[in-house]
Amino acid sequence: MIGASRNPDKVGSVILNNLIQAKFKGKIFPVNPNAEELQGLRCYPSVLTVKEKIELAVISVPAEVSVEVTEQCGKKGIKNIIMVTAGFAEAGDKLMEKRLLDVLTKYKIKLIGPNVLGVLDMYTGMDTLFLPEARLKRPRKGGISFLCQSGAVGSTTLDLMADNNFGFAKFISYGNALNVNETDLLEYLGKDRDTKVICLYIEGIREGKRFMDIARKISLKKPIIMVKGGMTESAREATFSHTASLAGSGEIYKGAMKQSGIILADNLNQLFDFAKILEKRKKPNGRKVQVITNGMGYGVLSMDYIEENGLVPAKLNAKTIEKLKEKMPPLVNIGNPMDLIGDATNERYVLSINASLKDPNVDILLAIVLFQTPLIDEKLIDIISKMNK
Amino acid sequence: MIGASRNPDKVGSVILNNLIQAKFKGKIFPVNPNAEELQGLRCYPSVLTVKEKIELAVISVPAEVSVEVTEQCGKKGIKNIIMVTAGFAEAGDKLMEKRLLDVLTKYKIKLIGPNVLGVLDMYTGMDTLFLPEARLKRPRKGGISFLCQSGAVGSTTLDLMADNNFGFAKFISYGNALNVNETDLLEYLGKDRDTKVICLYIEGIREGKRFMDIARKISLKKPIIMVKGGMTESAREATFSHTASLAGSGEIYKGAMKQSGIILADNLNQLFDFAKILEKRKKPNGRKVQVITNGMGYGVLSMDYIEENGLVPAKLNAKTIEKLKEKMPPLVNIGNPMDLIGDATNERYVLSINASLKDPNVDILLAIVLFQTPLIDEKLIDIISKMNK
Repeated sequence: MIGASRNPDKVGSVILNNLIQAKFKGKIFPVNPNAEELQGLRCYPSVLTVKEKIELAVISVPAEVSVEVTEQCGKKGIKNIIMVTAGFAEAGDKLMEKRLLDVLTKYKIKLIGPNVLGVLDMYTGMDTLFLPEARLKRPRKGGISFLCQSGAVGSTTLDLMADNNFGFAKFISYGNALNVNETDLLEYLGKDRDTKVICLYIEGIREGKRFMDIARKISLKKPIIMVKGGMTESAREATFSHTASLAGSGEIYKGAMKQSGIILADNLNQLFDFAKILEKRKKPNGRKVQVITNGMGYGVLSMDYIEENGLVPAKLNAKTIEKLKEKMPPLVNIGNPMDLIGDATNERYVLSINASLKDPNVDILLAIVLFQTPLIDEKLIDIISKMNK
Repeated sequence: MIGASRNPDKVGSVILNNLIQAKFKGKIFPVNPNAEELQGLRCYPSVLTVKEKIELAVISVPAEVSVEVTEQCGKKGIKNIIMVTAGFAEAGDKLMEKRLLDVLTKYKIKLIGPNVLGVLDMYTGMDTLFLPEARLKRPRKGGISFLCQSGAVGSTTLDLMADNNFGFAKFISYGNALNVNETDLLEYLGKDRDTKVICLYIEGIREGKRFMDIARKISLKKPIIMVKGGMTESAREATFSHTASLAGSGEIYKGAMKQSGIILADNLNQLFDFAKILEKRKKPNGRKVQVITNGMGYGVLSMDYIEENGLVPAKLNAKTIEKLKEKMPPLVNIGNPMDLIGDATNERYVLSINASLKDPNVDILLAIVLFQTPLIDEKLIDIISKMNK
């Protein structure tokens, strides 16, 4: 941890504290020439004074000294760096970024960054995000990984996902992508066992052809959901000063992503929805959706959304209809949508859901429950959540 | 209140109770041949036994007796009815609906319904919704009116809007629209002083040409926001059994609504967002949007949404830029989006917002504040909410 500091507000000490709090299992060497000990750990004046082999350096020093510190990492034989430091091409200093790249090439170092929020691995406790938990909640362990070019989008997304109990595997903010880019990281997440769903926020893609090839292969095995920033001319101008990347034409991107099997979300809310569903999914057998509701307005709207999104309404088979007709009052409409009407009871939901789940013509079931009507209550939620095909 | 009942769970007694709870200022006459007194009010065997003039009858009796009861209203000289009773054309009984219509025509009665949730007027306390407050929250007084063909969509929407502190004027559920339809009600809301924003959930429109003419005139004075159910073939099949109406082609509707000045929302969430903004709006002078943020990813996404939605990025004038450059640290990007960067402070927001609001090149200001960064706090919300152009 190069740039660890005595001042608890400094980025370097926040990261050091996060690593300790997250119970990172590896050994941690704080580096700071002006301290002997930090947060209970022995502190080193430079990486060159550490005797043990070091697998990864996290660098949080001012941009002016980042090149020198990286050179020291090279000499020490460190091959992997995460650099949170900003102030390179995105701030107009292309020369400094070039100098940094030269050092990386010379020593064959892979670097995530610079200008990143950091990397978080829920399974190893490697928490190098430069914001403390009080500012940015950490999510629980799970299957979603998020690859994010923007630290701001990444941090707020992670915060919201934690708040909404999303399960996370890895979060990677990759900023200026100096020699490790979105394509490398996507390839990595494709192979990562803990990652079940890959979410991406990307402004510019550097190796378009390779990115598409890799995405096409991964998307056969795990869903990839993407929000693309910089789809329009006005936004493209803004991307350069943000992550020093050039965004391409929106329409071309949309076509290319579709060909690569990537699910393109219109906005971050959609990304949340897709990720939550896809993390927990059992893959449905097909596209046929049965809708059950006690509010037909929502039945009508559901039919619209089913058709607009390439799904089809299920047609219950004759036996299911017959069986349900026997048990339901005459006003209940055993169609699709199935209208359990305003005096629907918990029992009516259980009957219709069970019958629909057993029907071979139903691939997906959408149960819409309005608790405004008088004869159902909250117990229904528990009952439904325990049902299983 | 025809169909008032001793049983507190019955629709008729819920409505009677709502009228009393909402402190309706008019006189209320419960009608029930089997009771002498209900909820502290004298009860009448039929409307014909009431001596006073009656302006409005609310009918909640079984469908089988609804025609007879309506005939009595006619004899009594009542010209306005709200009928919550269901079981007419939407349930396959076209004959009964025809008989009801004949009585209405004979006595020149205007009827909202049948098959409705009811009508709620926040300004007079006329609460005829057949769900109690425990099942369906009532919103506060305000400027939004909601005209809704579906009781289910209406009730859940009202509930959510109440929860989110939306201000309401009138809620009208109009169901089968026997002789008062969406066009009549839209015309009424256009003239209603308390209504500042009109929201519509409509499945089928009966007098297309008249509806468009009226909408075109109203939309010049108040915004009309609409969610249209039954845009697709599958949904259209469902609308008939719902509100006995025929929905038309989605594309034709979209074109017609646009020509009529109606804002078409994709879904109810959008309707909520539009309504909330439009209720409080000061009409902006133009389309030029300035974005201020401490997270450039959101700046980039905002530029996309601005361009995709027919707005344009503002260009601050030279004086504003000069003034801000003097006061801001060099890394702050005084462009659009304006990037206040990760060490943004409350003061930096105040400076940039004030300068932008004074700039004649800015019509709309979008301030995006990420509270994940360390140097801002919640006080900023109060500060911003007190700022005024």
